Amino acid sequence: MAIRDKAFTIIRRVFKRHGAVEIDTPVFELKETLTGKYGEDSKLIYDLADQGGELLALRYDLTVPFARFLAVNAVGNIKRFHIGKVYRRDQPQLSKGRYREFYQCDFDIAGVYGRMVPDSECLAVACEILDSLPIGDFGIKLNHRRLLDAILDLCGVPADKFRTICSAVDKLDKEPWSEVRREMVEEKGLSGDVADKIGEFVVLKGKPWDLYNSLMESKSFGNHKGASEAMEDLRILFEYLEAMGKLKFISFDLSLARGLDYYTGVIYEAVCMNGNTQVGSIGGGGRYDTLVSMFQEAGKVTPCVGVSVGIERVFTLMEERLRQEQGGSIKQPNVTVLVASAGDNMLRERMKLTNVLWDANISAEFSQQENPKLKFEIANALDRQIPFMVIVGEEETKQGKCKVKDLNARTEDTVDVSDLVKTLRSKGVVPVGCEFAMEMLNSESD
Amino acid sequence: MAIRDKAFTIIRRVFKRHGAVEIDTPVFELKETLTGKYGEDSKLIYDLADQGGELLALRYDLTVPFARFLAVNAVGNIKRFHIGKVYRRDQPQLSKGRYREFYQCDFDIAGVYGRMVPDSECLAVACEILDSLPIGDFGIKLNHRRLLDAILDLCGVPADKFRTICSAVDKLDKEPWSEVRREMVEEKGLSGDVADKIGEFVVLKGKPWDLYNSLMESKSFGNHKGASEAMEDLRILFEYLEAMGKLKFISFDLSLARGLDYYTGVIYEAVCMNGNTQVGSIGGGGRYDTLVSMFQEAGKVTPCVGVSVGIERVFTLMEERLRQEQGGSIKQPNVTVLVASAGDNMLRERMKLTNVLWDANISAEFSQQENPKLKFEIANALDRQIPFMVIVGEEETKQGKCKVKDLNARTEDTVDVSDLVKTLRSKGVVPVGCEFAMEMLNSESD
Repeated sequence: MAIRDKAFTIIRRVFKRHGAVEIDTPVFELKETLTGKYGEDSKLIYDLADQGGELLALRYDLTVPFARFLAVNAVGNIKRFHIGKVYRRDQPQLSKGRYREFYQCDFDIAGVYGRMVPDSECLAVACEILDSLPIGDFGIKLNHRRLLDAILDLCGVPADKFRTICSAVDKLDKEPWSEVRREMVEEKGLSGDVADKIGEFVVLKGKPWDLYNSLMESKSFGNHKGASEAMEDLRILFEYLEAMGKLKFISFDLSLARGLDYYTGVIYEAVCMNGNTQVGSIGGGGRYDTLVSMFQEAGKVTPCVGVSVGIERVFTLMEERLRQEQGGSIKQPNVTVLVASAGDNMLRERMKLTNVLWDANISAEFSQQENPKLKFEIANALDRQIPFMVIVGEEETKQGKCKVKDLNARTEDTVDVSDLVKTLRSKGVVPVGCEFAMEMLNSESD
Repeated sequence: MAIRDKAFTIIRRVFKRHGAVEIDTPVFELKETLTGKYGEDSKLIYDLADQGGELLALRYDLTVPFARFLAVNAVGNIKRFHIGKVYRRDQPQLSKGRYREFYQCDFDIAGVYGRMVPDSECLAVACEILDSLPIGDFGIKLNHRRLLDAILDLCGVPADKFRTICSAVDKLDKEPWSEVRREMVEEKGLSGDVADKIGEFVVLKGKPWDLYNSLMESKSFGNHKGASEAMEDLRILFEYLEAMGKLKFISFDLSLARGLDYYTGVIYEAVCMNGNTQVGSIGGGGRYDTLVSMFQEAGKVTPCVGVSVGIERVFTLMEERLRQEQGGSIKQPNVTVLVASAGDNMLRERMKLTNVLWDANISAEFSQQENPKLKFEIANALDRQIPFMVIVGEEETKQGKCKVKDLNARTEDTVDVSDLVKTLRSKGVVPVGCEFAMEMLNSESD
């Protein structure tokens, strides 16, 4: 939970500096709202029992509730974020990071805006989050739904097979081309020639401008209208991402297809890297211009683009790194200061001192026993890696003093209680809720 | 949501400085776990549909899941907090702050510890939270279940009527004594004499030591064993609360009974005050030493004490105060800086500048339109009360400069882009996530 809290704090900070407002929708929706939005995954929706009243179901993701929210409240434009739990009626597989209940962190921009402007900000947000989280290297694979459709069209795939061929293409990050080709030909009825043509395109990937320029120079798409428009979208997007310093994280990848049907424009997927090897997806998103229309009166359109961070995977990565840093353990002390005493009947003195620390927002505790032995308290602090102890005895109490023990530096100072907070702060103790600010101020003064 | 976020940040900070670890339990429990814990309120539990697999229900509070967690994981002692949603299958009454889905913020200490030590820390946590939240004056009413039982015993109430008479007493904060007496006599079959004797006790309230001493001096409870033990608990508790500087918030109130059956020791309820008038409950708790046993093998006992903050009420109070401060509106700008430009085709320049601010954790946005007119942008910033604008024109871009417009001070400076962050910081712009730290540092330097 400490790792989760850290991740959420970082993510929330990025969302907020982009001026997104937080919106919370209820954990359950009317059953009919969720029906027909998730294809065959609909069987994973958790329904509530019919105890009278409306038929309800637990939300399956945060996107459909957001679309419903926009339509019901007639919100035409908004930049919002939502961190919340979603539910899948699935057999949990903890090893694969599959749970029945898990968090999603979504950022979406709805509204009619400059071409590719909100798309570029969603990607900037994704880059900033992944760059701020302690999860190592990452990259973002990017493609365009309409470019993919154009490729299939140019290769001779009939329009009604676009989606099913797309989902075959989408498997290219897990399966070799030969297997994907087999699926296209044997299961989905393409001719070998058509499949081979597709194969020439979908192996293409590279730095955004490199692949863009090479596709343009080779006139790969002829004058196909959809392809031209998609390529123009990408040209504008790359320029914007360059202006925001984010293009370095992007890879233009013609094999990226994304499973969900509702995407209508640019699509992307964030992957974490170990050197040059991709080791798993940690989020994704894209443009979905037609989803909100499903809840609106006919003819009304609310274009949207968004990104969702797959946070369970992030927790695992953060945990792994912490384990490496700490030599196998992810244990961290729950307090910075343990207040102890020498001699009996000093509980109230410990309470008074601890209260001084609480007032200064320093995390501290005293033993909940009346008369713990000091030597056990010291052993306790060492065992739990609590970095500081404040120790008071009868003599110190009379003089308004206490001892400050730095367990890492192995020093001990006797100070006036009125100087206690100042002393601890000078030894690097950071008040609760000030960790990030202190880090920032320190890096600024470097 | 901005108000919520602020409240949660404050509450979380207090929990953490007390060294509590955060625990999250699933939003649904096995149905049988919740059965038989809430008396007649059980009808408000939301069940999940039987779609195969276990029978599940949505959690009704955070205490029963916590007790189940302790028993299942054989956790004998822990100091934990939990901020989460709970569910009631009720008709929502927004005016009364009654919802189907709402947050609870719980802090509990489980384990065998020094007498009244964890109880005093739970009360300290409650006081610190309510003192830190911008909700005005508050007080905490405190009583002891066993003292109440002793009083009923001394007055001649048979033991099997303790709980039902307790719940009559509990209505004294809403109804006059005459009405409560009528209920005791007419509905619950007490004699008038017995009711009158109860009446003499339950009107007593006052400062902790005042009432304690007056009860001890008048030997009100004779040598009743339960009463003596409860009074000794309270004496120890008051001493501890005094040591932690929290006794000033406490009122010892013999009319406080609390509805739930599972309390076994000290009980308390936080109320917000308008002058000397109590205007509503904002939390409460107490000791519950037997609840965990219901999930454990026979004979095993895990004593617990906890406090729960009723956060929906807190949101309302914070909103009211903000509305007063801002003259009716609770609107707050979603960003600190709006980046705008003079002249066309400057979108990428705006993006570059905004990115500089994002990198420094300053909340900023640019218009999502390609070429918004500057005068509309200024009107937009004024309307949304965004305090700063950064403006760039073709000329400034060439020189690596930009303008910083302080809309409150009505000043405008031209600065190097490399000094932009420094300039904004010097004008009081606080990076996202550093609000509290800056406040603390400023108050320290005063």
